Amino acid sequence: MDVEEFRKRGKEMVDYVADYLENIRERRPFPTVTPGYLRELIPDSAPEDPESWDDIFADIERVIMPGVTHWDSPQFHSFFPTANSYPAIIADILSDGIGNIGFTWASSPACTELEVVVLDWLGKMLDLPPAFLFSSGGKGGGVIQGTASEATLVTLLSARTQFLHKHNKSGDGHHDDGAVMSKLVAYCSAQAHSSVERAGLIGAVTMKKLETDEKGALRGTTLQQAIEKDRAAGLIPFYLCATLGTTLSCAFDNVLECGPVCEKEGIWMHIDAAYAGSAFICPEFRPLLNGVKYAMSFNFNPHKWMKVNFDCSALWVQDSSLISDAFNVDPLYLKHENQGKMPDYRHWQIPLGRRFRSLKLWFVIRAYGLKGLQEYIRKDVQLAHDFEKLVVADDRFEIFGEVVMGLVCFRLKGPNDVNEKLLKAVNDDGRINIVPSSVKGTYFLRLAICGSKTNNNDINFAWKVISEVTSKLLQENACK
Amino acid sequence: MDVEEFRKRGKEMVDYVADYLENIRERRPFPTVTPGYLRELIPDSAPEDPESWDDIFADIERVIMPGVTHWDSPQFHSFFPTANSYPAIIADILSDGIGNIGFTWASSPACTELEVVVLDWLGKMLDLPPAFLFSSGGKGGGVIQGTASEATLVTLLSARTQFLHKHNKSGDGHHDDGAVMSKLVAYCSAQAHSSVERAGLIGAVTMKKLETDEKGALRGTTLQQAIEKDRAAGLIPFYLCATLGTTLSCAFDNVLECGPVCEKEGIWMHIDAAYAGSAFICPEFRPLLNGVKYAMSFNFNPHKWMKVNFDCSALWVQDSSLISDAFNVDPLYLKHENQGKMPDYRHWQIPLGRRFRSLKLWFVIRAYGLKGLQEYIRKDVQLAHDFEKLVVADDRFEIFGEVVMGLVCFRLKGPNDVNEKLLKAVNDDGRINIVPSSVKGTYFLRLAICGSKTNNNDINFAWKVISEVTSKLLQENACK
Repeated sequence: MDVEEFRKRGKEMVDYVADYLENIRERRPFPTVTPGYLRELIPDSAPEDPESWDDIFADIERVIMPGVTHWDSPQFHSFFPTANSYPAIIADILSDGIGNIGFTWASSPACTELEVVVLDWLGKMLDLPPAFLFSSGGKGGGVIQGTASEATLVTLLSARTQFLHKHNKSGDGHHDDGAVMSKLVAYCSAQAHSSVERAGLIGAVTMKKLETDEKGALRGTTLQQAIEKDRAAGLIPFYLCATLGTTLSCAFDNVLECGPVCEKEGIWMHIDAAYAGSAFICPEFRPLLNGVKYAMSFNFNPHKWMKVNFDCSALWVQDSSLISDAFNVDPLYLKHENQGKMPDYRHWQIPLGRRFRSLKLWFVIRAYGLKGLQEYIRKDVQLAHDFEKLVVADDRFEIFGEVVMGLVCFRLKGPNDVNEKLLKAVNDDGRINIVPSSVKGTYFLRLAICGSKTNNNDINFAWKVISEVTSKLLQENACK
Repeated sequence: MDVEEFRKRGKEMVDYVADYLENIRERRPFPTVTPGYLRELIPDSAPEDPESWDDIFADIERVIMPGVTHWDSPQFHSFFPTANSYPAIIADILSDGIGNIGFTWASSPACTELEVVVLDWLGKMLDLPPAFLFSSGGKGGGVIQGTASEATLVTLLSARTQFLHKHNKSGDGHHDDGAVMSKLVAYCSAQAHSSVERAGLIGAVTMKKLETDEKGALRGTTLQQAIEKDRAAGLIPFYLCATLGTTLSCAFDNVLECGPVCEKEGIWMHIDAAYAGSAFICPEFRPLLNGVKYAMSFNFNPHKWMKVNFDCSALWVQDSSLISDAFNVDPLYLKHENQGKMPDYRHWQIPLGRRFRSLKLWFVIRAYGLKGLQEYIRKDVQLAHDFEKLVVADDRFEIFGEVVMGLVCFRLKGPNDVNEKLLKAVNDDGRINIVPSSVKGTYFLRLAICGSKTNNNDINFAWKVISEVTSKLLQENACK
C-alpha cells in the first residue's frame, strides 16, 4: 500500500467508523453466531500474493461484524462501559503514525514527558493529594498501565519486594526468600475483582477475601481482626487492595476506616477504582475517594468511563522508587545520558514496550474540557437513576444494593432461579444485552450504562424489553 | 466533537500521518530536547472548557514533535525496529471504532475467532509443528500478547504452576508452596534480554544466566551441566528461556542441542525470537528455528519486523491448558454459555482486557501477502550485509559476531574506550542514531535496519556519517 492509497483507504475507514458508531442502534448488541463461525468464512492459510484492499475491506461486514459484540451500543448493558470517543480515535491514529516505543525517556522524550504532565492534570482533576503528583517534587507520580489488573499486580509485586527486603535484605527472588514469601498475606474484599485474586496467584502470595458489610463494604474492624489473627499465626500481612465501585455491584470499601488500619500496621493500601474513579472528577462524587491519602497507590480506568479508548489505566503512587526498584534491570543498550531526571516508565510496568497513550488522554481532556467530562458522567448517573425509578415502580422487582454510579443492580422478588431464567430470556430476546452477578448467595441482574450515546429513550427501551420478557416469563411459569 | 467534525479531523490526521511518514528523513532521528522540556510548553492543569481542535492539532508540531524519537526514520538504527505500515494503521482505526474488550469468547466472538485463525495462518507461515496450531485439534494454539516480556512471563509462570502442582499438589500460591518456590531454578543465556531476568524477579524464582560459546550461543552441554549441578544441590530446574536473535548481538542459542536436554530433563523450554522470528517466514532462514518442536512455547513479535504496528507479540503453546490453568479465576459476570468451545483468551495473558489486535495482523498479511513480507525481510537483511561490506572494507573497523539478520555489530579495532567515544560522537552529530552493546567485556556499536523505508542510500549515508565522525575523532585523539 503506497501513501496515496493510504490517504484514500485511511479516510474511507474514518468514514466507516463514523457510520458504524452513528448507526450502531441498528445492530443487535450481542451477535447470534456460534463458536467456530469465523473459520468457515475465510481461507485456512495466508495468501501468497497481496490481496486487493476492496476484498479486505468487504470482509469487515462479511466476516467480522456478524461476530462483534457492540460495546458502544446503547442497548449493550453488560460488564462496565468501555470508552469510545472521536478525539481518542484520532489520537490513536497519531500514536500509530509516530509508532515510538516509550520504554525510557530517551526512547522518545515526548512520550514520557506528556504522560508525566497529563497524569498530573488528571490527578488534579481528581483532587488527589499532592504527594501523588510529579509536580509536588517528591517521589510521587502517575503512569498509564494497560489495565487495572496490571496496576493491581504491579503494586502487589512492589509491596512484596518491599517486604522481602525488609525481612531478609534480599528481595531478588532468590531462594532465601522462600520462607518469607510463604508467610506473606494480602487482603481484598469478598467482592473484589477476579484480577485481584489473580494478582495473588501470579505473585505467589496468599490473597484472603474478607467479608463485607450489608452494603458490600470492607470495614476497618474486619481488616484489623484479620491482620491480628494472621500475625498471631506467624504470617506477614503486607497488602490490601481496596475497591471503590466493585464489578459485582458497584460497592465501595470503607477506605476512611481501612486506611488508618493500614497506616498503623505498615501495610500497603492500594485502591482500585477502575470503573467509579472517573466520577471522582465531579465534586459531588469526590467524597467517595476520601481516605485516598492513606493509599500507597491509586488506580482508575479512563478507558472505562472517561471517553479515552482502551487501553488507558491511570495509576498513581506516593513513592515511585518502591515501584521502580522492584523490577529494575538495566542493560547497556537501554542506558542513556539523562537517566534519573525523568521517569523511565519501563520500570513502572510489567511489559518493556509502551505506546504513546498519553496522546489520547491529552486530546480527550482538551476536546471536552473538565466540564464536558463532568457532564458526561452526570448524564450516565442520571440515566441509571431513571432506570432505577422504572424498576422501583414495578412491584415485581427490587433494587439490589444502592445506585451510586451508572450501574443498576436489580432482580425479580423471589428466588434466584426465576432471575436466572429472566437473564437468559432477556439475552435470548436479543434486543438488549446484560450480565448477571451474585453477592452472598443472592443472584441479580446488572444494567450498566455503557454506550457513549445512551439516552433516556434507550433506558426506556431497555425497561420495555425487560418488562415484556418478564411478563411472558411469569405467564409461562404460571401456566406450568 | 460531533461525527461531522470527526470525519473532517480524522481525515486530516490520516493526511498528517501520511505526510509525517513520507517526509520523515527531514527530521533529526533523535531529538535535542533536555529533560523537562515539555512541561514548559503546556499549562499545568486541565482546561475547564473544551478547546478548539485547531489549537489541539497545532500543538502536535509545537509540543510533541520536538521531543519525538523517530523510530521509523531510515536514519534511526537503535534497538531493533518497531513495525509501522499503512494497512496496520487502518486496522487500528477499525479496532478503535469497534472498541470491544475481548476477554472471553462471548465478550466479542469475532475478536477471539479471528485471532485463533490468523495465529494459525502465521504459525503455518513459520512452518511451526502442527502441535502449536488450533487446527491440529489438540491442545495447542496461538495468542497475541502485548510484548515479548509478557510472553516470557506468562510461560514462566505457567511452568512454575505446573511444577508447584507436581511437587505439592497445591500450586495456588498458598504458603505451603514456599518451600518448593524457593528451590525452583530457571535458565537463560548470559545474552538473554533484560525482560527474562525481570520475569524471574516477578515470578520470584531464581533465574540463572548461563555462559555462551564464542558465537554467543547457549549450548546443550552447558545447560546439562547446570541442571545436574543444581539438582545435586537440591534445587528444581524447571524452565529455560532460549533466545533466537538476542538484543545484544543477534546471537542464536542452540535449540537443537538444548531442546533434547529439556525434553529429557522434563524442563519447559520457551523460545524467545522477538526480533528474528519474522525472518523465519523465509525458507532460507527457517532452519534457524529447527528444534522448535522441543519447545513448550514459542514467541516472536510481528510488531518488530513484520509490518504490524505495536503491540502484537505472537505466542504459541503446545498445551494451552498449562497456560490457562495457571491463572484461571472464573467469576459469574464473565461466564457464558459457550465456555470451552473456543479459547477464553483472558486465561492466556496477564491483563484481563484486550483490544482487537488480530485485525491488524490480518490486514497486513493480506495486504502484503506472504511474498511481500518475505521480500521486506530479505531487503533488510541485504541492507545489513551492504553495511557489513562497508565496515569490512575499512581496516580501522571490525565486525563483532556474525551478520545474520538486519543487525550489524561493529567496532573500531582496539580498546573499548575509543568505541565509547565514537558512539557518543556519532549520536552527538545527530544525523543518525545508534546504541551500544557489550558482550563478555567487549564494547561495540549496533546498527539495526529500523525504518520501514530504509534503502541503500540510507545505509551509505549512515556509513558516511560514521566514517566522517571516526576520522575526526581519530584525528583529535592523535593530536592530544
